[in-house]
Amino acid sequence: MLRTVPDVDVLRELVDGGARRAVIVGAGFIGLESAEALRHRGLAVTLVELAGQVMPGLDPEMARSIELELLRAGVEVRLGTSVTALREAGSGTVAASLSDGSQVLTDLVLLAAGVRPETSLAAAAGLALGARGALLVDEHLRTSVPSIYGVGDAIEVADAVTGGPALVPLAGPASRQGRAAADHLFGRGGRRSPVLGTAIVRVFGTVAATTGPGEKALRAAGIPHHAVHLHPNNHAGYFPGARPLHLKLLFAPDGRVLGAQATGGDGVDKRIDVIAAAIRAGLTVDDLADLELAYSPPFGSAKDPVNLAGMVASNLLTGALALWRGGDLLHPNPQAVLLDVRSAAEFRPGHLPGAHNIPHTELRQRLGEIPRDRPLLVYCASGFRSYLALRLLRQNGWPDVRSLSGGLSTLQLELPGLTLDQGEPVAELTPAGR
Amino acid sequence: MLRTVPDVDVLRELVDGGARRAVIVGAGFIGLESAEALRHRGLAVTLVELAGQVMPGLDPEMARSIELELLRAGVEVRLGTSVTALREAGSGTVAASLSDGSQVLTDLVLLAAGVRPETSLAAAAGLALGARGALLVDEHLRTSVPSIYGVGDAIEVADAVTGGPALVPLAGPASRQGRAAADHLFGRGGRRSPVLGTAIVRVFGTVAATTGPGEKALRAAGIPHHAVHLHPNNHAGYFPGARPLHLKLLFAPDGRVLGAQATGGDGVDKRIDVIAAAIRAGLTVDDLADLELAYSPPFGSAKDPVNLAGMVASNLLTGALALWRGGDLLHPNPQAVLLDVRSAAEFRPGHLPGAHNIPHTELRQRLGEIPRDRPLLVYCASGFRSYLALRLLRQNGWPDVRSLSGGLSTLQLELPGLTLDQGEPVAELTPAGR
Repeated sequence: MLRTVPDVDVLRELVDGGARRAVIVGAGFIGLESAEALRHRGLAVTLVELAGQVMPGLDPEMARSIELELLRAGVEVRLGTSVTALREAGSGTVAASLSDGSQVLTDLVLLAAGVRPETSLAAAAGLALGARGALLVDEHLRTSVPSIYGVGDAIEVADAVTGGPALVPLAGPASRQGRAAADHLFGRGGRRSPVLGTAIVRVFGTVAATTGPGEKALRAAGIPHHAVHLHPNNHAGYFPGARPLHLKLLFAPDGRVLGAQATGGDGVDKRIDVIAAAIRAGLTVDDLADLELAYSPPFGSAKDPVNLAGMVASNLLTGALALWRGGDLLHPNPQAVLLDVRSAAEFRPGHLPGAHNIPHTELRQRLGEIPRDRPLLVYCASGFRSYLALRLLRQNGWPDVRSLSGGLSTLQLELPGLTLDQGEPVAELTPAGR
Repeated sequence: MLRTVPDVDVLRELVDGGARRAVIVGAGFIGLESAEALRHRGLAVTLVELAGQVMPGLDPEMARSIELELLRAGVEVRLGTSVTALREAGSGTVAASLSDGSQVLTDLVLLAAGVRPETSLAAAAGLALGARGALLVDEHLRTSVPSIYGVGDAIEVADAVTGGPALVPLAGPASRQGRAAADHLFGRGGRRSPVLGTAIVRVFGTVAATTGPGEKALRAAGIPHHAVHLHPNNHAGYFPGARPLHLKLLFAPDGRVLGAQATGGDGVDKRIDVIAAAIRAGLTVDDLADLELAYSPPFGSAKDPVNLAGMVASNLLTGALALWRGGDLLHPNPQAVLLDVRSAAEFRPGHLPGAHNIPHTELRQRLGEIPRDRPLLVYCASGFRSYLALRLLRQNGWPDVRSLSGGLSTLQLELPGLTLDQGEPVAELTPAGR
């Protein structure tokens, strides 16, 4: 039963009454916002999530930024874990048993482990139901009994990109479905729209937003796609308060934009909204590169992050850019050379095991050190300098050069267990032509 | 000659050297940002602008918000005024004579009265020039000598909506023109795009942004169009920090979005960027109403301001809404009844002269007081309650009802000289049917 406000009143009473510890089950929007609110009230919070990541709707490397923010804020995060039992442990304390065999003592337990349509009335009335008990509606929001309309969290919608059935319990689509149903009731057309699932959450000081399917969903739906990652500043770097976004763009081989995810601070919402409009309009990555967005130093850059994402994607499609990803380290090609093109000062405190270091500014002078006959996996901090290095190497005849998508910044989110090596660069690589 | 950084160094030296008064000529982006910077340094600033408004690129009612912000910040704003002479007045003081006969003594004068292409080298080389001496380029950015390309502030571009030639000296288009020219140089296509003139400025605590032509430009180009004004909160009203935007949307009779302007605080940039993408994609106001934008309370509402603008525009096109504007007060129809549907507490301290007051919540009970045979000009604070009143009156048989676009909030910006009446509502209007 939906009891949002009474439930929150109970929570507040528990906290006002002295609760100091909370267990939250589920790291979706509600679980995360509740974790923040309870931390702000000073409680020790344990967040238990069955999936191997927070925000299961996001791709794992993007969700990892939110996980790190939770850890910074002192939330205990238990991933890949479920609550197997809750029992009273005396004096108002509850003992929560977790699937990893551990037990957490707590003063309150908040269940936020997913949304399911409450359609028992519809079922009793004989209306047709679809996935997970959601109401089936036609393009005009009519149920199987045409004089009964269905809108909101209770209905099954069409996914805008995959075309498949989806449940998207969000206020925005619900609100527009209400308008469309009313329009149809009053003889003015009124059609439901496919749903992108655009969503956003602020968790302490970090924002995460998404529109359209992520890489996980595209893989599951068997839709061919590419992904790029980048870390542009939210506004001009010389203007106070600039902070990098982490932006991931998903697009089809023909260039159509399919989805995007972003984390960061100010300006995450703007970039996702622009891309949501672009997907809705069927724009391509070339169109994104060419969008004319509002620029002055407090708001963006002459090349907005959305433009940059379009440019990087376009470069990938034209072949001017080739990428490698974290997964390539898990099954490495023994022939491949790892080339770190950051400065020596950046290389020394942490670099990929086995990597060689030639700063991109020295590359032209040190081409002789790089073997010509081996695949080169180039990387830097964010993917920009490694792209410059790739262009330079390609133009000088190296046939197989790839740049790390999003650089070490993305890689460390993709491979949380990765340990970097420390130490000086070696003086010289394998001589060319060997 | 372009000397931006040296010019700023001179300005800083003057201020560090004790300048206490500044005259700025021109209230465009540079003039406004300079006025803010010099006020922050404590100078008395007089801003002189030839046009009858600041930010001549904006429609006047939208620019008025920025003028009010300048006044709040203590800037002296002289509109419809030019500087006719500058002369030394001893001890480093300059006397600026203004076209209104007044004279302003100042320690420094900053000329920021427009941008003109510096194409003397191109002219000397015999390259073809267009409007105001701008370089003429073809679709691939080639000048009349095809081995010479032109990009940036110096070239004439095509206006994305009117199709006519335009000069748009902004960094975003310049940057993309550079990429397009380079693509063409290297045999990869590379075409210039038409330009929307998307732009943004922050002036003290207020932001103004624009994309596509405004009403002034559409009128001048003879392009049929409609306009709606609205004042939605930038994010959910119950979340701290909510502040209304003033959003104006311009669209064609077939629904195509043509342009938008907005003022306010946080979130102005986002809405203009989304609409800039929508214009580029050829979307309609119905599409805007249906865009699926990221909503959680810190970032928006289930119905985002962009959705609402699309809905209001769509209502106008379907005939569900009819609007009146400030201009209707300048040449009033003597038959028309002005109906204020705000509460009595809002009516009392300030209402339009001659207006009657029936709060929209009492309208159903007081229909008998409203004459059926006269045009009704309904208004409220922002245009929302007057729309509800319009629907109610139409459904009850009133044939000619219009709602004030953007309500008194917009009207007071459109008619800065307007004086509101004070006093109690009259007990009863003209009885129905008279």
